Amino acid sequence: MRTETDSLGNVIIPNDAYYGAQTERARLNFAVSGKTAVDVPNYLWSVAAIKRAAAEANSQINALDPEIANAIIQAATEVMEHKFDNHFPIDIFQGGGGTSTNMNMNEVIANRANEIITGSKGYLVVHPNTHVNMCQSTNDVIPAAMKITCCLNLADLITVVGRLEEVLKQKTIDFAKVVKLARTCLQDAVPITLGQQFSGYYHQTKRLHQSLIEARKQTFSLPLGATAVGTGLSTLQGYLEHVYPQLQQITGEPFVAEENFFDGLQNGDTYLEVAAQIKKLAVFLSKMATDFRLQGSGPRAGLNELFIPAVQPGSSIMPGKINPVIPELINQIAYQVIGNDLSITMAVEGGELDLNVWEPVIIKTLFESCGLLTNAIPIFIDKCLIDLKPNVEVCRRYAEQSTALATVISTLFGYKIGSQVAIQAFEQNLSIREVVIAEGILTAAQADYLLDPMIMTDPSASAAAVHRYHQES
Amino acid sequence: MRTETDSLGNVIIPNDAYYGAQTERARLNFAVSGKTAVDVPNYLWSVAAIKRAAAEANSQINALDPEIANAIIQAATEVMEHKFDNHFPIDIFQGGGGTSTNMNMNEVIANRANEIITGSKGYLVVHPNTHVNMCQSTNDVIPAAMKITCCLNLADLITVVGRLEEVLKQKTIDFAKVVKLARTCLQDAVPITLGQQFSGYYHQTKRLHQSLIEARKQTFSLPLGATAVGTGLSTLQGYLEHVYPQLQQITGEPFVAEENFFDGLQNGDTYLEVAAQIKKLAVFLSKMATDFRLQGSGPRAGLNELFIPAVQPGSSIMPGKINPVIPELINQIAYQVIGNDLSITMAVEGGELDLNVWEPVIIKTLFESCGLLTNAIPIFIDKCLIDLKPNVEVCRRYAEQSTALATVISTLFGYKIGSQVAIQAFEQNLSIREVVIAEGILTAAQADYLLDPMIMTDPSASAAAVHRYHQES
Amino acid sequence: MRTETDSLGNVIIPNDAYYGAQTERARLNFAVSGKTAVDVPNYLWSVAAIKRAAAEANSQINALDPEIANAIIQAATEVMEHKFDNHFPIDIFQGGGGTSTNMNMNEVIANRANEIITGSKGYLVVHPNTHVNMCQSTNDVIPAAMKITCCLNLADLITVVGRLEEVLKQKTIDFAKVVKLARTCLQDAVPITLGQQFSGYYHQTKRLHQSLIEARKQTFSLPLGATAVGTGLSTLQGYLEHVYPQLQQITGEPFVAEENFFDGLQNGDTYLEVAAQIKKLAVFLSKMATDFRLQGSGPRAGLNELFIPAVQPGSSIMPGKINPVIPELINQIAYQVIGNDLSITMAVEGGELDLNVWEPVIIKTLFESCGLLTNAIPIFIDKCLIDLKPNVEVCRRYAEQSTALATVISTLFGYKIGSQVAIQAFEQNLSIREVVIAEGILTAAQADYLLDPMIMTDPSASAAAVHRYHQES
Amino acid sequence: MRTETDSLGNVIIPNDAYYGAQTERARLNFAVSGKTAVDVPNYLWSVAAIKRAAAEANSQINALDPEIANAIIQAATEVMEHKFDNHFPIDIFQGGGGTSTNMNMNEVIANRANEIITGSKGYLVVHPNTHVNMCQSTNDVIPAAMKITCCLNLADLITVVGRLEEVLKQKTIDFAKVVKLARTCLQDAVPITLGQQFSGYYHQTKRLHQSLIEARKQTFSLPLGATAVGTGLSTLQGYLEHVYPQLQQITGEPFVAEENFFDGLQNGDTYLEVAAQIKKLAVFLSKMATDFRLQGSGPRAGLNELFIPAVQPGSSIMPGKINPVIPELINQIAYQVIGNDLSITMAVEGGELDLNVWEPVIIKTLFESCGLLTNAIPIFIDKCLIDLKPNVEVCRRYAEQSTALATVISTLFGYKIGSQVAIQAFEQNLSIREVVIAEGILTAAQADYLLDPMIMTDPSASAAAVHRYHQES
Repeated sequence: MRTETDSLGNVIIPNDAYYGAQTERARLNFAVSGKTAVDVPNYLWSVAAIKRAAAEANSQINALDPEIANAIIQAATEVMEHKFDNHFPIDIFQGGGGTSTNMNMNEVIANRANEIITGSKGYLVVHPNTHVNMCQSTNDVIPAAMKITCCLNLADLITVVGRLEEVLKQKTIDFAKVVKLARTCLQDAVPITLGQQFSGYYHQTKRLHQSLIEARKQTFSLPLGATAVGTGLSTLQGYLEHVYPQLQQITGEPFVAEENFFDGLQNGDTYLEVAAQIKKLAVFLSKMATDFRLQGSGPRAGLNELFIPAVQPGSSIMPGKINPVIPELINQIAYQVIGNDLSITMAVEGGELDLNVWEPVIIKTLFESCGLLTNAIPIFIDKCLIDLKPNVEVCRRYAEQSTALATVISTLFGYKIGSQVAIQAFEQNLSIREVVIAEGILTAAQADYLLDPMIMTDPSASAAAVHRYHQES
Repeated sequence: MRTETDSLGNVIIPNDAYYGAQTERARLNFAVSGKTAVDVPNYLWSVAAIKRAAAEANSQINALDPEIANAIIQAATEVMEHKFDNHFPIDIFQGGGGTSTNMNMNEVIANRANEIITGSKGYLVVHPNTHVNMCQSTNDVIPAAMKITCCLNLADLITVVGRLEEVLKQKTIDFAKVVKLARTCLQDAVPITLGQQFSGYYHQTKRLHQSLIEARKQTFSLPLGATAVGTGLSTLQGYLEHVYPQLQQITGEPFVAEENFFDGLQNGDTYLEVAAQIKKLAVFLSKMATDFRLQGSGPRAGLNELFIPAVQPGSSIMPGKINPVIPELINQIAYQVIGNDLSITMAVEGGELDLNVWEPVIIKTLFESCGLLTNAIPIFIDKCLIDLKPNVEVCRRYAEQSTALATVISTLFGYKIGSQVAIQAFEQNLSIREVVIAEGILTAAQADYLLDPMIMTDPSASAAAVHRYHQES
Repeated sequence: MRTETDSLGNVIIPNDAYYGAQTERARLNFAVSGKTAVDVPNYLWSVAAIKRAAAEANSQINALDPEIANAIIQAATEVMEHKFDNHFPIDIFQGGGGTSTNMNMNEVIANRANEIITGSKGYLVVHPNTHVNMCQSTNDVIPAAMKITCCLNLADLITVVGRLEEVLKQKTIDFAKVVKLARTCLQDAVPITLGQQFSGYYHQTKRLHQSLIEARKQTFSLPLGATAVGTGLSTLQGYLEHVYPQLQQITGEPFVAEENFFDGLQNGDTYLEVAAQIKKLAVFLSKMATDFRLQGSGPRAGLNELFIPAVQPGSSIMPGKINPVIPELINQIAYQVIGNDLSITMAVEGGELDLNVWEPVIIKTLFESCGLLTNAIPIFIDKCLIDLKPNVEVCRRYAEQSTALATVISTLFGYKIGSQVAIQAFEQNLSIREVVIAEGILTAAQADYLLDPMIMTDPSASAAAVHRYHQES
Repeated sequence: MRTETDSLGNVIIPNDAYYGAQTERARLNFAVSGKTAVDVPNYLWSVAAIKRAAAEANSQINALDPEIANAIIQAATEVMEHKFDNHFPIDIFQGGGGTSTNMNMNEVIANRANEIITGSKGYLVVHPNTHVNMCQSTNDVIPAAMKITCCLNLADLITVVGRLEEVLKQKTIDFAKVVKLARTCLQDAVPITLGQQFSGYYHQTKRLHQSLIEARKQTFSLPLGATAVGTGLSTLQGYLEHVYPQLQQITGEPFVAEENFFDGLQNGDTYLEVAAQIKKLAVFLSKMATDFRLQGSGPRAGLNELFIPAVQPGSSIMPGKINPVIPELINQIAYQVIGNDLSITMAVEGGELDLNVWEPVIIKTLFESCGLLTNAIPIFIDKCLIDLKPNVEVCRRYAEQSTALATVISTLFGYKIGSQVAIQAFEQNLSIREVVIAEGILTAAQADYLLDPMIMTDPSASAAAVHRYHQES
């Protein structure tokens, strides 16, 4: 064990720990969730990337001795390579602003940098605040790191959403010939093709895909350089001009300084925006998942018009039962994502004065939501969507039997007659076709082209059919 | 027009208005929603009841001249009789604490009381603050009035929930002989009676009914007497002992002073509790409504096992279509109620220091939720539940066809054989009965009592059937 | 009284009512909130505008007799002119899809059109479904009308947000010379100008303004022409090509058909998007309002650095008390808006299959939120923001006294010495300036330029000060 | 590696894994969050306890061979002792109903039980479904286990809330003599003692404590015995009578069968109730935490009336800054808990027909909320509350300076004069005492007893002072 000192006094630290006094205090202060910064993909990487970029910038403006700068750069790089993951023990829930995580990073890098230079841990040559945190404050580092993390994590999410878009597009083609009955208010409506149904999913996904790409652009502008309250106090001349190019080079992303640093520190609207787009995605996925569950209900006492791939037995007691577990997974993830959106909303609304300090809970919830969808969408694609199959025969039977086919009769003879035909069909358990022929409203030949469900799914074909009828009669 | 003066200066008031300067300022300050205190059932009644009780108490302790007291009592009574509804023009959204509504009441009563005594409006004899508000503060009057309102409005809600409970109980009897298939994960499960399904609704409602009654008890303890911050500053000797008996007499409810007034002003947990119980009710109603919509889906491309009463034509284009509009109404009300619960949560969480001042938004949202359910439940009962009818034949067919009847085979011969039977039935499109007889697993006679869906709905009957089988074989 | 008939039978209607059987049924079915379509700005206007555009299109393609078309156009125009507001009695909460409101419109227009042609109400010549609803379905009319309503209402909101942006911009200039102390975690931080603080608000508002403009663009594409399920069944040849130009002309907005009608009917992401942007606005306004309340707290036991304009007396019991009622109004509206966002989220998530039918609750909540902000922002501007005044003396005193000025010492001499100075200042109740001079760390002359709060608010000035110090020493 | 087979075919399993085919499938199907059942305190223990109780009951009714029963009992006990934690690899998010976790348990126990009997894993003697799951279904096991888990976890939460109650009670005594100024709408109000302020916290906590104890009682009734859909199909005669006594003995808690099993499976209101009570607790803690942050703001530009214990340095850039990190932790946990309440609400609302299958997301969110508070409250007590200290001098100064002391003048001479005094004091920067003496309203002697802040905190003392004044004058 070794002793480290901070402004509150001495703290005992395990010898092999690269973190220091403030980390150890924070570790004990916040042990509530068992989840740490390591559990958030790209987060520590982003903080370390900032430390590295800052050291490079500070070296370039001659504020940092090259030896110290190089040691910091090397140490930060090692953190980025996950070599020190075990040295970030602080709970993801923590005091406002994320000071503890920033100081944890400063301490690990300082200890490691000293080790590189002197062979021993400690702050003899490199000090966590004076050197590693030079020109920075927790208040600009952590929100900047959050945006970088957001940028990187959204990239992964966008990739899988892009793949979903492709798969759904293909389904619109695969299912183009499957005629079925549409339902509104869960009641029988008029025919549609399964491909048309999926074209709705496809276009929605395309739109969501684009929205995520747009939202991600908001993560490109960072408050880095704002330091404590937006005034940039303690940044040195030239720092700002050098740190962003370095950061761009390290990350490969076009990060720039925010137009107004005060705005950047006060407001968390970027997180609200990202959360909103993620929520939109989750809401849609949940809706689609519910559609599949409805259409796949049965096999004998349900709609039974869609075969959801079986990925595991469904019941511990009912043999042969198969449940739509993958769509169910999606529904539940949506519930979590919607709950998390609320947590983020409250965190942003609860901001006070010059800095929104509720970053820790935003990090926890936003990236949980993002990660759940990033992990779940490929599962949804590969274990459900790809092998989804229509029950073609059932689909067609539904389409032919619907009393809502009377809509065509309505178009031809007015709503009143359409209505009478529909009621008669329902009461006598007949098809619309059977009723209109029996009642002499249409001939069988006319019914053939006017009541063909497939024709009804195509507005120009059905308009042409109506046109043909009028010409013929 | 006449001129009234308050600490900020002169205000022009219409001659016939009974309200005064502060009301007029507030009317202009808060015109955002178009909704006023008059739109909240029992709210103004409750505030006026407090004013009357306070005047009676203040008269009894000789703090108020009897003539003034009597005029205040008469004026307050007239407000309770809705004679001055047009004189409460302030938006329901308003400044924190509801000062404006309390002052509106003080002004209307003072003007009317002066008129009673002197023949003219004005505050010559009776002053809104000095006399009408004597021993009171907005800070104890408004939360006390909210709790009284809550108490009264919950009584109405509890009454309709009680009726729902009765109707559902009757349904468990009416539907006791209707055997159908239960579904879990929307997949075919094992038989159940419709009466059993409704017994779940009935017991849930019974529990919710009781929860509401319990929650209502929390509204009996009031902060009245706390005045501005809980210390009761400005209450006169004897006031507290007299005001509660008066209030009990006026309202007929057992209102008492809260155990701790500071708690009473700081915290809004009673509203959270009431909102939570109302949310639980809405969530259940929504779940039941969705069940009806699912079971009533069709008529030909849905489950079609329940006939939801037709209360209006369903489509402007599809003749003969009937939609489950009443259950749909319930679902949507639930969405509003859940949203309102969140607004209330934020309002309570946002309380600061010695008084939670977010009462106006709590009043708006809590009583909107309460009113929606109080109005909708009788509609749900009378226009949907009462005349709900099972499609007995479809129900029975589903029950007999389920491959999950193999559960019994599993109980008798192990999960593996049960599983094989189920898969064979599914693949060959046979019933479980057909498979087990064909495969020589059971005789037709054994199948009669072992695979009868109705027997399977009764655990002792099915256990007896299994027992009989073991004894016979 | 007169009798109307629909597919469910006869209904008695008041003689002077322009609505018909389906409206009357719906009026009785849904009486839960007391709020109707008339209470939603621009909503009935939008539905009527669609009816008019459809009649014009149907006339152009010769599907409607010119006399009938003209009567429908005139009747629709009269509805748009609010001449029939009393004839839309149905609750805003109603069955899924808003069929009742669409039929209410069809009936009013049909009765009025018949009256125009024949002198009497009734459907002798013009039928609500056959003629008024020609080529339409509730399922495309109502979501199209919602988007038009959204477009129009957002325009009003955007206008007031634009004004807010201008006012805040002016404040950044007005307050540019007011130096004060920034606070993070509610603890004293380093100096900032009040203008800088407001520059954060200004830039945030500018961004929100832009986001609303972007979101509004999503309302330009309509599902009109999709009819019942997206296939456009029952639309006649040429209808689609004619109806949009007509609608553009009537509304003056660039409405076009959605790229994919199935998507348009299935998904409510546009409402989620608009709700999200409105929520972001509300969240920011609430944060700013809380800042004002904090900074305006006091006058003697609070921060007392901001004078919030007095708009009404604050207390019924504490004379002279003035409360920040306008900011408080804003906070509460935000709670409502956030709750409504949740209701909308659930309504969109709860969509099933081919049509999201939860439009009524979306209409109620989305436009309530929009309206509250549209009404409240001008109040916030005129009754709070415009006359907001800093307490310059208090602001400056805070800035000079902060122990966080030791940040500069830290920059010059390392974090350790900075820390010692800060602690000494705190413990001995001295200013940082006093400590560093007493301890011989800086001369008075150096302290003058290094510890001037105003210089610290300017990063280049403070960097220059540090630079000057280094050159001098 | 070994091969296991289920109804879908063969699965390759690591040799040392005690889980089987269905677990392995589920492990791959649901890898989304990285969190498993092991992360939920008491959950696997509860499932295993049910398996053990069921084996004991099945042995007692002679349905299970004693050797098999004993092996199952031993295996289940080993699971309860955490000996197999590594063999539960399935994500906490999973298919509806938690079938995968139940089957994971069945497989682990079966493999271990076979090993006990035969020396090898496999299902030669003990089968996961036939024997371990005997008389059970996932559909009754998992909700029963959830309720047991809830019961156990709530016990821990209740214990820490009980301790909080004690600590707050002590504070009411410790702070009884500290007079300060109350604030409403963040504006100066009338005096209060800090002990009175804390008495509000104490009584609120007492009430929340009791609410949690009440809510916990709802977890005592279990659906165990309901099997798949509530009918108890596949339970054997006598099972129900034996399994509950066994479960009571194993758990030490009074678990009984639910009054109605259908209700038990359909509805998740117990989780809503528990979530609501946990939310109420979180909301209150957050409110109290915000109070501390406000009162502890400063040290020089804030209220500075409360010293929040320093537990770590506050800033990486501003030396000497100490932030209220523990209250901030509490605020953020509240945001998470409120978000989770919403997820649970959606999960319960989303229940369909005979079983609410959204248990996995309920488990994840409900027990996360419960655990966060259970862990955070002791931290809040020990690192914040215990050592919280008032700034007595500042508190007293605020109390004496408030212009709201004019309330007493108002009580004596009417609101108008009270108001004039208050305004004069404010404008001339005097105390109320100074004004009333200067204006000849009170003598210094009268002011001594009428305007003493400490007297004003006691309603009978202040009423007595008013009484004394009236008698003297």
